[in-house]
Order: sequence, then C-alpha cells, then structure tokens
Amino acid sequence: MTQDMWSKEHQSVEACLTEAVNHCRPFAQEGKPASYIPALANANASDLGICLMGCDGRIVHAGQWEKPFTMQSVSKVISFMLACVCQGISRVMEMVDVEPTGDAFNSIIRLESSQPGKPFNPMINAGAISISSMLPGRRPEDKVESLLQFYESLTGKRPRINEEVFSSEWETANRNRAIAHYLKDTGYLQTEVEEALEVYLKQCSIEVNTADLARIGIILSRDGYDPIQRKALFSKQIAKISKALMLTCGMYNASGKMAAFIGIPAKSGVSGGILATVPPRVGKNASFPFSDGCGIGIFAPAIDQAGNSVAGIKLLEWVANEWDLSVF
Amino acid sequence: MTQDMWSKEHQSVEACLTEAVNHCRPFAQEGKPASYIPALANANASDLGICLMGCDGRIVHAGQWEKPFTMQSVSKVISFMLACVCQGISRVMEMVDVEPTGDAFNSIIRLESSQPGKPFNPMINAGAISISSMLPGRRPEDKVESLLQFYESLTGKRPRINEEVFSSEWETANRNRAIAHYLKDTGYLQTEVEEALEVYLKQCSIEVNTADLARIGIILSRDGYDPIQRKALFSKQIAKISKALMLTCGMYNASGKMAAFIGIPAKSGVSGGILATVPPRVGKNASFPFSDGCGIGIFAPAIDQAGNSVAGIKLLEWVANEWDLSVF
Amino acid sequence: MTQDMWSKEHQSVEACLTEAVNHCRPFAQEGKPASYIPALANANASDLGICLMGCDGRIVHAGQWEKPFTMQSVSKVISFMLACVCQGISRVMEMVDVEPTGDAFNSIIRLESSQPGKPFNPMINAGAISISSMLPGRRPEDKVESLLQFYESLTGKRPRINEEVFSSEWETANRNRAIAHYLKDTGYLQTEVEEALEVYLKQCSIEVNTADLARIGIILSRDGYDPIQRKALFSKQIAKISKALMLTCGMYNASGKMAAFIGIPAKSGVSGGILATVPPRVGKNASFPFSDGCGIGIFAPAIDQAGNSVAGIKLLEWVANEWDLSVF
Amino acid sequence: MTQDMWSKEHQSVEACLTEAVNHCRPFAQEGKPASYIPALANANASDLGICLMGCDGRIVHAGQWEKPFTMQSVSKVISFMLACVCQGISRVMEMVDVEPTGDAFNSIIRLESSQPGKPFNPMINAGAISISSMLPGRRPEDKVESLLQFYESLTGKRPRINEEVFSSEWETANRNRAIAHYLKDTGYLQTEVEEALEVYLKQCSIEVNTADLARIGIILSRDGYDPIQRKALFSKQIAKISKALMLTCGMYNASGKMAAFIGIPAKSGVSGGILATVPPRVGKNASFPFSDGCGIGIFAPAIDQAGNSVAGIKLLEWVANEWDLSVF
Repeated sequence: MTQDMWSKEHQSVEACLTEAVNHCRPFAQEGKPASYIPALANANASDLGICLMGCDGRIVHAGQWEKPFTMQSVSKVISFMLACVCQGISRVMEMVDVEPTGDAFNSIIRLESSQPGKPFNPMINAGAISISSMLPGRRPEDKVESLLQFYESLTGKRPRINEEVFSSEWETANRNRAIAHYLKDTGYLQTEVEEALEVYLKQCSIEVNTADLARIGIILSRDGYDPIQRKALFSKQIAKISKALMLTCGMYNASGKMAAFIGIPAKSGVSGGILATVPPRVGKNASFPFSDGCGIGIFAPAIDQAGNSVAGIKLLEWVANEWDLSVF
Repeated sequence: MTQDMWSKEHQSVEACLTEAVNHCRPFAQEGKPASYIPALANANASDLGICLMGCDGRIVHAGQWEKPFTMQSVSKVISFMLACVCQGISRVMEMVDVEPTGDAFNSIIRLESSQPGKPFNPMINAGAISISSMLPGRRPEDKVESLLQFYESLTGKRPRINEEVFSSEWETANRNRAIAHYLKDTGYLQTEVEEALEVYLKQCSIEVNTADLARIGIILSRDGYDPIQRKALFSKQIAKISKALMLTCGMYNASGKMAAFIGIPAKSGVSGGILATVPPRVGKNASFPFSDGCGIGIFAPAIDQAGNSVAGIKLLEWVANEWDLSVF
Repeated sequence: MTQDMWSKEHQSVEACLTEAVNHCRPFAQEGKPASYIPALANANASDLGICLMGCDGRIVHAGQWEKPFTMQSVSKVISFMLACVCQGISRVMEMVDVEPTGDAFNSIIRLESSQPGKPFNPMINAGAISISSMLPGRRPEDKVESLLQFYESLTGKRPRINEEVFSSEWETANRNRAIAHYLKDTGYLQTEVEEALEVYLKQCSIEVNTADLARIGIILSRDGYDPIQRKALFSKQIAKISKALMLTCGMYNASGKMAAFIGIPAKSGVSGGILATVPPRVGKNASFPFSDGCGIGIFAPAIDQAGNSVAGIKLLEWVANEWDLSVF
Repeated sequence: MTQDMWSKEHQSVEACLTEAVNHCRPFAQEGKPASYIPALANANASDLGICLMGCDGRIVHAGQWEKPFTMQSVSKVISFMLACVCQGISRVMEMVDVEPTGDAFNSIIRLESSQPGKPFNPMINAGAISISSMLPGRRPEDKVESLLQFYESLTGKRPRINEEVFSSEWETANRNRAIAHYLKDTGYLQTEVEEALEVYLKQCSIEVNTADLARIGIILSRDGYDPIQRKALFSKQIAKISKALMLTCGMYNASGKMAAFIGIPAKSGVSGGILATVPPRVGKNASFPFSDGCGIGIFAPAIDQAGNSVAGIKLLEWVANEWDLSVF
C-alpha cells in the first residue's frame, strides 16, 4: 500500500472509529468504574478510547486512546506468556489448567471442590497468582523486573507501575490472599504467599494505554512474531494457547457471550481496559486496512457486574461487525 | 482447480490421512467405548475413521469413515441451530445461556447453585434438554420429525434413528430425567418432562457417519450457506454462535485444552463421533485442498474419562498441525 | 397423682398455655402459609394450637388444637421409624446417612458433590424419598397401607389421606421428581421413581391434629414404649436415632438454632405442624405435670423462609423456657 | 453418699472403665495420629485414657488419663463460651451462625456459596477463627491471656501452651490463613488476620489432660455453675448453646452419627482429645455414681478420616451404653 492510499484509508477508518466511539460512549452509563479502591473509583466514567495497530506498526485511534490506565486482569495474559517462555508450556500446565469455569474471577470454591486444588485457568485470580509465582527471578522484585523487561520487549518502552494503585490493591487484597494461601496449601504456588501477591498486584498496577495493548495484540495476532521489530518474541504455540484462553476465559463470566456474539480473543480488566487480537487470516475485506493481522486496545472505565468495560465491549462489537472480524 | 490436479492432490491428502489414521489408532487403547448401554459398549474399540469435505462437496477420507454411529452429544449442535432458526436467537437465549461451566456434562449442581436455574449452555445435558423442548412441533414425534427434516436439509439424506440405542438410553436416563424435572421446576422446559426426554434421547440416537458430519461441518464453515446445494440453510449469526459454543464448550471438560492445543471448533459425543468445522479463512496453505472451508467428521468409539474419543482427538490434532488449521 | 390434683394442675397448665397461645399468635404475621399448592395456601394464617400429652395419656391443650392438617415433613420421622422397624437400622443406614447438611430441604447439590450420591439424612427430601422406597410392601399402595397401619398402631386411629393435597403435591413435584431420579441413578432408591414419589407424597398428605402428634411424641419420649397401650412399638435404639435426627436436622435450616435456643427434639412441616418430644428425665420441676415424659403437637400454618411455623416455634420456645425442657 | 460407699462404687466403676479401655484400645489401629505436624504425628497411637468427674469433684479414671495433649479443636468450645461471656450472645450470633454444615472442618466453600460469608458455626475452623478474633483484649497476647485466665477459672490451674505445637501449626496454617483472609474480606473478623490466627493457633496448642476436660465437662453439665468452687462461671444460656453446638457440630463430619448412636454432647480434636458432658438429669441409674451430672475427658491420639479419635469414640460409646447416658 502506498503512503497516500494508507493516508486516505487511515482517515476513513479513523472517522468511522470516531463515530463509533461517539455512538458507544453513552453505554458507559449502564456501568460504573470499579469502586474497591479510590484510584479506580475516581476514573472518568465517560472516557472511551480505542487504538488499532497493523503489521507495519501503523495505528488508527479515537477517543481517549492515550490515557494511561492500569492493566489489572489484562496483565494475566502477559504473565502467562512469560511463564511459558521461561518455564515451558508443560511445566506451566502442571501448575494451572486451561479450562473455563463459569465461576466469578475471584472464586475460591473450585479449588476445594475439584481436587487436587489446581487452578482451572490462568485468567481467574487463582491461576494468575499461581502464574505470578512462576515468573523468572528469585525475589518478588526480580520477578516484577522480569515482567517489566518482557513488557518492554513487547511494547518498546519500559512501563511504569502505578504505586498508588498497587498500595491500595495491597491493602484490600484479602480475597486474593485467601486464594494464595489456599494455593500454598495445595502446592500450586512456587513462592511464599506474600511474594506471589506482591508480584501479582504489581503486575495489575502496570500502566499502559490503548496503543500499548494494540502493540501486544498485533504480536499475538502474528503468533509471537513482532512484525515491527521483525523478530520472534515467543513461540507460536504460546501465542495460540494465549489466544484460546482469551477467547474461552478472557472476559470473566461473559466470556461465552463474547465468543458467541463477537468472536475476537480478548482480555479485560476492571480498570476498563481490553486487549484484543485479530488473527491475520480474518478480516479479509476491502475496507479493513489491517487484513494481515491487527492488535486492538480499548479503554473505558465503567464496568458491568461481571467486571467488563460496558462501552468497551459495545465498541469491540461494533468493530467486529463493521469489519467482520470473528474468528469463526 | 482442474479435475486432474484435484485427483492428484486428493490422492496425496488421502495417503497422508491414512498414515495419520494408522498412527493414531493405537491411542484408542487409552480409552474404551462408553459402557452404560450395550449398543455403545459393543463398538469396535479400534475403529477410527475420518472424512473431510470441501466447498465443492468433494471428500477425502480414511479408515472406517463409512461406519454408522449414533450422534449422541454431537446432536446438541444441530438441535441448537434448529431451535435458533425456528424460535429466534433471542428467545433461545432466554432459555439457555452460552457460558462454559467447567462442570461435567451431566452435572446438576449449577442449576441449583446459580439462580434462577437457567442452563449454562446448550452443550451440557441441561441446556440440550431445554433446547429439545424448544424444537418446532407440538408433540415429541413432531419435534423429532422437524429435526430429521432439518438433518435432511443439511445432509441431503433422511437419517435413521437407532431404536435399540434409543430404547436403552430411555431406560437408563435417570440422571437426565433428574435434570429435566429440575428444569421443569425452574421453568426452563417448554414441554412435559417425558416429551423433552423423548426428543432429546431420539436426537442422540440419530445415526450418521463421518461424511454426514463433514457435510454439516462445511455448512457451518460457510456460516450457514450450503456451497453444494448453493443455498442458505441458517443465518450467519446462528453459525457463529454455534461455532463459538463448539470451541468453548464442545469437548466436555476438555474444551479448554481442545481450544488451546488444537483450536478447531468441534463437538464430540460419547459414541466417539466428532463434528469439526474449519472456517474458510483458515488453512491457507499450498498443501491443504480445502482452503475455502472444510467440514470434518471423525469416528473412534474408545473414549476418555471426559467422554471424548481418544484416537479421534489425536487425529484431529494431527490434522490441525499438519495443515495449520487453528482459528487463532 | 390423684384425679383431683391432676384436675387442678391441668387447669393451671391449660390456663398457662392459653395465655402463651395468645401471646405467640401475633408472631404468625412474620410468616405466611406455604403457597405452592392451594390447599396449604388457604390455611388460616392466624391459627395456633398446641397439645401436650403425658405418660398416662392425659392431655392439656389450647387454641386450634383439634384442627386437622397434613403432616408434610413431619411424616419423615414416622416413615424413618417404620423403615428401621422393618428393614433394620443397619440396612437403613446403607441407604441414608444421619448427618446434618446446612442445605435447604429440597437441595440436590450434595447428591452430586458428595460421592456416591447417598442422601445425607432422612429429614431432607432426598433421604425421605429414599426411605419411602424402603417401606414394607411391594406396590406403592402396599407401602402406604403399611404406613397407615403403623400410624394407627401409634395413635390408635386410622388416619385419612387428604387426596386434594396429594393430587396438588403430585402435580407440582418437579423438584422431588428430580431428586428421586437422581437417587434412582445412584442406586439409593429401592422402587421405581414414580412409586417412591407416590408413597412419599401420600405420607406427606396424611391428616393429623396436634393430639395425634403429641401421642407420637410421648411414645418417642418413652423410647418406643407406648405407656398408654403398655406395649413396645419400636426399639429404644430407633427412638434414640429418631430423636437425634429431629434435634440435629428436624427444623430445616434452623435446626441448629432450635437445638441451641430451645433444645427439644422436634420435626416441622410446611403445613405448620411441629412434632416435639421431651425425654422423661427432663422437666423435673414442680409445676410441670409431665415429668415422666411428654409429647407435644403444635399447629400454626404461617411459616418462615426456612419452612418452619413462626408462631409454632415461638410457642415451643415459650413452653421450653417455662418448664425448663431443654435436653441439655 | 458416705465416703465408704463412694470408695466401693469408685472401685467398681474404675474396674469397669479399665476393662473398657482394654477392650477399646485395639480399635486405635483403625486410625492413626494426625500427621500434618511432627508433634502430633509422634504421639503414641495406642494411648487411651479416660477421666469422669462428678459434681463433688471426685473422679474415676483409667488408662493414660494423665498424659498431657494439646486441645486442638476442643478449644473451640471454650473460646466460644468466653466470647459469649464477654461480648454477649447476640453479638456473637452476629459474627457466626449455629447451624451444622455437613462440610469438612477446614472447608471454605460455604463462605463463598452462602452469602454473606458468615461462618456456619463456631465448631468449624472458619467460625472458630472468627470467635478467636472476638476474645477480650486488644493485642493477640491479651486475647490469649484472657483465654488462659478463663481456662484457669474453669480448671483451677493455669494451662501451658505447647510452643512446639504452636510453631508447627503456625508454619503449616495455610488453609486456616486462607479462611481468615476470606473472613477479613467479608467482615467476619474483628482483628487483623495474623492476630486472629495467632490467638486461634495458640488456643489449639493449650495443653490439658483428661481430668482437665472432665472438669470443664462437669461445669457445662451444671449449666455454667461450678459445683466444686460453688460459683457460676458463665450463664445457663451459654452452657445450653455450647452443649447444643457440641451435639450438632462437635464431632466434625461424624457429628450426626455421634448424636444418633451415642447421644452425648462432645467435642473432639485432632490430637485425639474428647470433651464430653452428661446433663444431670441423665444417667439416673443405680450403678452410675455421677447421676447429678458428669464431665468426661478422653484421650486417644489415633484419629479417623473425619478427625475423631477412633478408640476414644468407641470408649465413649461404651460408657454411654453401659450407663444409659444419651440425652435423648
């Protein structure tokens, strides 16, 4: 595609997106920002931003796409990938299964009811905390540093940890502490409880914006190969498993509806962020400028009961329908 | 593609498949045929057959591809589609959710623990029985007739109900009766209990072979459009939801692993059948003759603890890897 | 005690009881009659009656003590005793445990979650239906006849089955049918499902009044020996187990509070009946005329969320406190 | 009773008990000492001791009745009583229910499945930890001191905390930590998690022998009045509730069978101790020297799957049958 053609297409897509953002923004009123810590509760409920990135690193965006927010559960995908990179998929599979549950993200029931207490998947808190304990490094700060470096290798910039969010999370983490102690008891934690929690809550507090998520999304789309830096960052198999986990368990208790009605692998967080990834073989149509794969980042802090961004899902649905992006 | 080229390619693919069948057949020893009724228990544990069908109706096959078997849970996909066709997606969604559960197919727990007793998805027995009660027709025989006609519209031939299997199922259906009575109590059954069970167990007893499943698979692949008869049999949205359900909940408690390691929407049954469908945009590679979409039928009666065909899954995994067929 | 003394004491106790009934009656407003069938829903919510019977068969009573009502769950105690009499305690223990659950009376969860699907105790529906299937007799009508004869042996009169209640119960018994089919599946039912249900629902529909319950209570109090007819009707061990079950599981989800704050073995039913029994060694105080054991029947149809008679419990609490009747 | 008569009766009862101990000791082979910490695992599996105490403080005993052991779960009764004494019954009822559960002692499921996460009773770990947080005193050491003083007021001697047991418990307390963090999250903990755990695990590590338990038992028997010191130590209502809790939930998952087949309020611990209490109005027979109430302490460290002393239960059953001590 010539620069000129891109420029025109770019403008047309961006106009489309802007219109979509305006259309979807009011849906935020059906939710509200997460209220369990002040730093999240104070978010602007009417913010809505989106960024799409293609194989060549070019982006289109609309709304509050540059606003920073903390990853929260979106980080579960990245930690899972790093654990697989460093410990190998089979070792990771010994510590956490990849089955969807139908339970709430912070549920502890299945650890007890399904012996031997192995977390069902890395997208619920139990599995994610187990994964955090498996990150490379001996001490928590080493593990966090590994993760920051992995992020940097993906996005090209070193992320910042929002210390205010982290310290609030740390103080209100009783349910997660309960889960972590249970995992310690059943042998699905590789570190001490407080160490795993520190890593887990710091990874939740990493600040990104929608462009960063779109960047990660395009690498996932290309099965671990970064088309911009032109190098492989993780294996194709890790990418496939991660995308499968996003599709089957990425949107909390609404994952099934997301798969059925949108069909794009995506992971949400209670801060209102969504990381989505469109495989290259999807979206082959004239009007979509990212037919060789596309990463998507979305941000809209008002969330629903399940924990998903209300306006964000609406916008992703709009994008999926507009350009026919379902993997099915 | 000219006839000659097809013929050569066909031979090469068929040789591949035959080799794969020989390679995968021994894995059947890790499972055994379902034993709860004689008609299933007497299956030949070492049978393994496969059939692939492309857009033009041409097929390649290997092993015991022509052996008839009863659909069992594979039928859940077809009933779901027919219910959507006749009652509309939104009405169907009122009666059954589309969320994966992590529970066994015959579990009743969530009907009680998750108010108001709505089945979690149409791929577990609770949801499937609810769907059976929604099929068009007043009496059970009318509903079964509707389903047979729908099958005929899909596969071009009227299927046979295996009466021996049906009558055995009918006599051992205590768990399903428990589920159906529970659904009746919570209002998620549109007929009397015995009527819904008759329909459900008859649909489970419909006989097919792998070519029939491949035929249904290619229509799902093409989003409801039958490329052979050249007509639309159900809507694109019904196809998308069905494929999403297959991927997220189609392989019992191993659905997550199926999505992660194979990545093809598929539905299994305890008779050892698997219906799989490869979207057209997937499998774009020189050696795969079905790059415009592909339906797959597999049969191998020895099943694992979760209820899935052991050799069948191995073979599907082989096919997925050989031709890179994951949707992710 | 001379006739005269009894007469005076009798009058004084009856005056006490009448006052207590007047005091407790208004509490009925905190509940309401069971509404799932018309015959129960139409009960007079402000009815409250009580009857106490001593070893010599003399009674004191107050309020609507003569009004007939259906036993509902109160019958679970009597069926359990008859099953033990006929099949022996150890055989009955193979079919049903004697552990309290904390679950609602109509819960099905534990049948699945606690292998091998054995009912936790005979006071929840699952256990009671299992017990109904164990009553002596081949056909349902034989089992019901056995039960009626057993009642007659206890109370001295042949009870009537309220056919209107039975037929309403029969039609709305979906949850119980679900439970019974589950029991059939796991092997904890000795008859066909419909047969066990017929017996169970007929036993629930047996009509009694508070004097009948008091009569049964005095026999339980005397460990199976009927002090009026002067003969043993069931063994001491059966009596002890039955009273233990009443205390630990007899008042649905409020059994623990009943044991803690009242301390009298009692079994309630959704019709508002309560059967209670005071062991002879309890209540040794000057003012209580039944210090050699006492049976109590109570009736007040307005029930609370757990299924217990609101005014009935208040009245039992009053009686327990007035005469110090806790077994502890 | 004269001193002489007592002496004869005493000898006869003690001979009986010694024979019973010899008879019951072999049953210990069906269990084994708790193995999760060395201090318990190293107990002598064939130890069996018993002590009975009457109203006048006189005791009869047999076997290893003087051996010290840690209270473990037996302490739950005493903490519950102290919390009630200091905070009042109604305040305690706000923090913990009194309903039996049917779940294992260390289960966490019901905290999540039964909203709002209130512990079901103070005899399971969740409830006991909640109670520990309610003991009088600001710091953990203050709460422990209060408890030690309360023990001293009951038994007349200041108990010792087994520091080896405490520190082992502390290190292996992951499941209890999980429970405590969950309680913190739902608001059913009055202190910090580590503080409540320190108190809870120290109370579990208090050393007693069977005579101490018999001493506590006789006070419970007399409804809180210590017949030896001749003063009331806690209210009658606290005593009644405590005995009801022992009967309905005191023997872990075998509480129902204990109530049905033995009928004595009792609380067991995984160290093999049992505290039992026989109300005064029970056991009125010529041969039983404690017909005005009796406290019983038993010790036999080999426990069964549920956590109860195997030989200890056998011996208690023997005692109950020999002297007809069931409350029913």
